[in-house]
Amino acid sequence: MSNRPLILVTNDDGITAPGIRTLIDVMRSIGDVVVVAPDSPQSAMGHAITINSTLYVEKITIDDGSQSEYSCSGTPADCVKLAVNEVLDRKPDLCVSGINHGSNSSINVIYSGTMSAALEAGIEGIPAIGFSLLDYNWNANFEHCKSYIKTIAENVLEHGLPNGVVLNVNLPNLAQQDIKGIKICRQAKANWKEEFDKRTNPMGRDYYWLTGKFVNLDHGEDTDEWALENGYVSVVPVQFDLTAHHAIQDLNTWDLK
Amino acid sequence: MSNRPLILVTNDDGITAPGIRTLIDVMRSIGDVVVVAPDSPQSAMGHAITINSTLYVEKITIDDGSQSEYSCSGTPADCVKLAVNEVLDRKPDLCVSGINHGSNSSINVIYSGTMSAALEAGIEGIPAIGFSLLDYNWNANFEHCKSYIKTIAENVLEHGLPNGVVLNVNLPNLAQQDIKGIKICRQAKANWKEEFDKRTNPMGRDYYWLTGKFVNLDHGEDTDEWALENGYVSVVPVQFDLTAHHAIQDLNTWDLK
Repeated sequence: MSNRPLILVTNDDGITAPGIRTLIDVMRSIGDVVVVAPDSPQSAMGHAITINSTLYVEKITIDDGSQSEYSCSGTPADCVKLAVNEVLDRKPDLCVSGINHGSNSSINVIYSGTMSAALEAGIEGIPAIGFSLLDYNWNANFEHCKSYIKTIAENVLEHGLPNGVVLNVNLPNLAQQDIKGIKICRQAKANWKEEFDKRTNPMGRDYYWLTGKFVNLDHGEDTDEWALENGYVSVVPVQFDLTAHHAIQDLNTWDLK
Repeated sequence: MSNRPLILVTNDDGITAPGIRTLIDVMRSIGDVVVVAPDSPQSAMGHAITINSTLYVEKITIDDGSQSEYSCSGTPADCVKLAVNEVLDRKPDLCVSGINHGSNSSINVIYSGTMSAALEAGIEGIPAIGFSLLDYNWNANFEHCKSYIKTIAENVLEHGLPNGVVLNVNLPNLAQQDIKGIKICRQAKANWKEEFDKRTNPMGRDYYWLTGKFVNLDHGEDTDEWALENGYVSVVPVQFDLTAHHAIQDLNTWDLK
């Protein structure tokens, strides 16, 4: 039996995406790697799970690396649940998700399949990290991400993470020499201003495409958006206790009899 | 123009579900109601949104009530985005989602389509509430929910909600006289212990059904689980800033050079 850490790798862009292939490559230099990832793209799936349909898991070989790989018909959260309960012999020491093709900073965390996989691992008590690169291109260059990903993953293996906390890591789309370092941040208070593109189909029925502009009105210099705009890798500790504890006192003054 | 509040109603069980019909009924007694809800069940969709497919919205009539109704081909979060940007003339004063057929207490909030609609409304700056009844049956009795829903909705309209906070309301499946009242709570630290039901399809290929047991190890008497087990309606203020602010200081001690 190996003394190396057991690392579960997943993503939301699908098991053949260049982002996850890079992540697998980095993780092989740290530990024993098992990949359980969706068989097709699952972007913007949020924390969806499959309860009204069946799930398939298939052992596959994609390259000649030492990792074991399984493709799964479910969502990113399903992949983690199946990995932990059916594929792996023991609880992994680390779960990493990504590298996502595109940003999961700020409010994007809430729509993100990449981060839902990391959160699911966190719920299962596994230290977990989601990685995303600010480049939506399928052929994005992930080379400059490798050293930062390795540093952050090794720190998580060494220190662990507080109970109920996972990391949301976003990497700027810059040349290695232009990246200034890694910054611990809070989630910026930004959101999408939707713009629906209305069209008419050949049968005369109206339909919409969801598009939008990302608007950041949060001028704080401690946010992930600030870090990314200023050439840093952003690391936001994220939790799945959604309770707005600060609001409880106020609500207790309401007349709810 | 009406001086009554404008109320957007949505859900994740689909526009014809008995739960949303009850919610529409209660909201009509408070304000002008517009319904934009999924045309089919969307349970456990988490915060999924539709970015790689088209969206349809259709004006429909289901009963002879005064509300306007639109059925939508998207997820609960899509419904809210479309309602705000394409269907409604002005920002609604309140968005309510549900009544979900089944619990969204504790960690279930993170998988919940009902709550993702409420969170989406919150992100858009609309006071929002998700309602769920602890009964999964399609023909559940929602009668006893009505007065509590009315009270909570009227309080939100009167007081507003803190910026970035929406309410997650769960109702116990008890007779009216057995409900003790409404309690403001925190999310219990509980989770699902998955159990995959492995089967073989007629073609000889293995597949899984996701099942599981809900396990609550959180003995606090300030949690939603405690309130529901003890006959109260639980109200948890929920936020979409997922930052684990308490972890930032610790992470800043790491060597991330």
